[in-house]
Amino acid sequence: MPELRKDMLTGRWVIISTERSRRPDDFRPTVKSEVSRENLAFCPFCPGNETKTPPEVYSIRNDGSSPDQPGWQARVVPNKFPALLPGLLPPRKARGSYQWMEGVGVHEVVIENPDHNLEMADLPPGHLGQIIKIYRQRTIAIEQQFHYQYVQIFKNKGPEAGASLSHPHSQIIATPIVPKRIKEEIYGAERLFRNSFRECAICRMVREERQSGERLIFENESFVLISPFASRFPFEMAIVPKRHSAFFRQLADEEITSLAEVLKQALSRLKFQLSDPPFNLVFHQAPNPQVAEKAWPGIDFYYHWHLEILPILTKVAGFELGTGFYINPVPPESAAEYLRKNEIT
Amino acid sequence: MPELRKDMLTGRWVIISTERSRRPDDFRPTVKSEVSRENLAFCPFCPGNETKTPPEVYSIRNDGSSPDQPGWQARVVPNKFPALLPGLLPPRKARGSYQWMEGVGVHEVVIENPDHNLEMADLPPGHLGQIIKIYRQRTIAIEQQFHYQYVQIFKNKGPEAGASLSHPHSQIIATPIVPKRIKEEIYGAERLFRNSFRECAICRMVREERQSGERLIFENESFVLISPFASRFPFEMAIVPKRHSAFFRQLADEEITSLAEVLKQALSRLKFQLSDPPFNLVFHQAPNPQVAEKAWPGIDFYYHWHLEILPILTKVAGFELGTGFYINPVPPESAAEYLRKNEIT
Repeated sequence: MPELRKDMLTGRWVIISTERSRRPDDFRPTVKSEVSRENLAFCPFCPGNETKTPPEVYSIRNDGSSPDQPGWQARVVPNKFPALLPGLLPPRKARGSYQWMEGVGVHEVVIENPDHNLEMADLPPGHLGQIIKIYRQRTIAIEQQFHYQYVQIFKNKGPEAGASLSHPHSQIIATPIVPKRIKEEIYGAERLFRNSFRECAICRMVREERQSGERLIFENESFVLISPFASRFPFEMAIVPKRHSAFFRQLADEEITSLAEVLKQALSRLKFQLSDPPFNLVFHQAPNPQVAEKAWPGIDFYYHWHLEILPILTKVAGFELGTGFYINPVPPESAAEYLRKNEIT
Repeated sequence: MPELRKDMLTGRWVIISTERSRRPDDFRPTVKSEVSRENLAFCPFCPGNETKTPPEVYSIRNDGSSPDQPGWQARVVPNKFPALLPGLLPPRKARGSYQWMEGVGVHEVVIENPDHNLEMADLPPGHLGQIIKIYRQRTIAIEQQFHYQYVQIFKNKGPEAGASLSHPHSQIIATPIVPKRIKEEIYGAERLFRNSFRECAICRMVREERQSGERLIFENESFVLISPFASRFPFEMAIVPKRHSAFFRQLADEEITSLAEVLKQALSRLKFQLSDPPFNLVFHQAPNPQVAEKAWPGIDFYYHWHLEILPILTKVAGFELGTGFYINPVPPESAAEYLRKNEIT
């Protein structure tokens, strides 16, 4: 019998479909996904091509090297084709019954390492830790301007996941409003905190997942890696900090190694236990503290930042677009069992 | 400057991106999308292969032909790999903090015509009218069971849009709960009705779109075809009835010809003015009247059924999945201008 499952934060239901279910082995490597090897001379993210990007806003560099020159380990640059442009907070305007505003915001690219072919899953944990520090640093820097209300950190790996360049990179977009999806999580978490659980819903979820172990894939000192109960996608994963915290920017230095380890575990399992699929990596954090506490008093107590990893193994189709319902052919418990069975070292 | 635009019903914002904008001509036919020509003998939807589907629940047939035999013009069959299975209303259950229920529902396939290669855009308007009648008939039949709370009619055209078979077909899924996306539209419409407009928001929108003409692509006696103000996708279209009605099932016989005409206009423009892209077609209607009036008193007055046509020309990526925000590189006004410039006959 298929199951309907409810995502407790957003109220979104998913269909865990058994009639059309596929076995995890169906997603094992077969033919490696075709990677179009662009001419490296034309990759704007490779060392030596620094002038092909806008001037860097941040970098981790070898001693003695200069900005926008080779010698970097990781680089942050404004997106050359930004979805939003820097500016002051624009007013909301009306056109007839419609509302709109100017598209003010930040759109940056994090070039994760100089080697065109070294994917995030392959990076040494120490380097991965440097990238996580960059995410934290950029979040704090961008949030100094109060009107950048929400900072979305994400990564698209592979063309089917929306990546237009293959050199390993992630992106940061800051928006002048708090996005719908984040608002839904905040309101959902608040409602559960006040009306039902009297504690953070995600803290409670982490405790239950560690007790049952059914959907637990990996854990270390500070983080758990799980298959979410109401996963939308086959082999969807979530990384959740054990320490309660609404704001990713409050990640402690001593937690960075732990996060790098669990992220590498997640991405390695995708790469080596599945078919190295395209994926999206998505951070969910509380909005800019300059607005969050005013708009949602107590958000510190009931919201809990986390990270979603969404492999692209099926197509989103009319039913999903029409209803917001997702059909997932792999039960999360089977996904977790499959993903945890081999130790990745 | 990019723009942020708000969808008035759902509160979803989109980014109309000018920096990364592409001209409509970029989407003109170049290479025809590769269609995998399955062996027709193996198409379960072709005449002669009726035994390869579950027994039909409805059909339009030539005089004298028998069910599950050739001689049909259109056929409705249960999906062989259904996402949901028929059954009685299941109780909501809990597993720890999580909620779930059995996946009860209806999943049917509408085989639109016997010819494997005759796409919906190519059908004579009379035949298209027959398909619309089938959608209406199945909605009414399924809604006789009160626990099928919402009937989602949709079509996936092309593998990139999620179609697994190429023989022209659409699908109907009825769910035992009202999906999130529909609830959002209902609550949004109610709020606008009661607090702002004192009239149906979509009636008002149709009036404004006809006045300005900026986003109007085509209209006839009973329907308008527009590029929605806050389109998520390039060349997204909406078909909206001019007569206020919450329930698609109340579509009058004399409106069917008009709907067939506007639907053919929309699909022909996609096929001949763009690159014949894959697309999703999605109906949005009020929930089963047996539950709608109880759950949302007055829904008759403030909800307004409509149809969305979503071409697949860009990839949904991490930003969209993380935030619910969409980035659309083609302003709806440019899309409408481009789509309306040639008369399709």
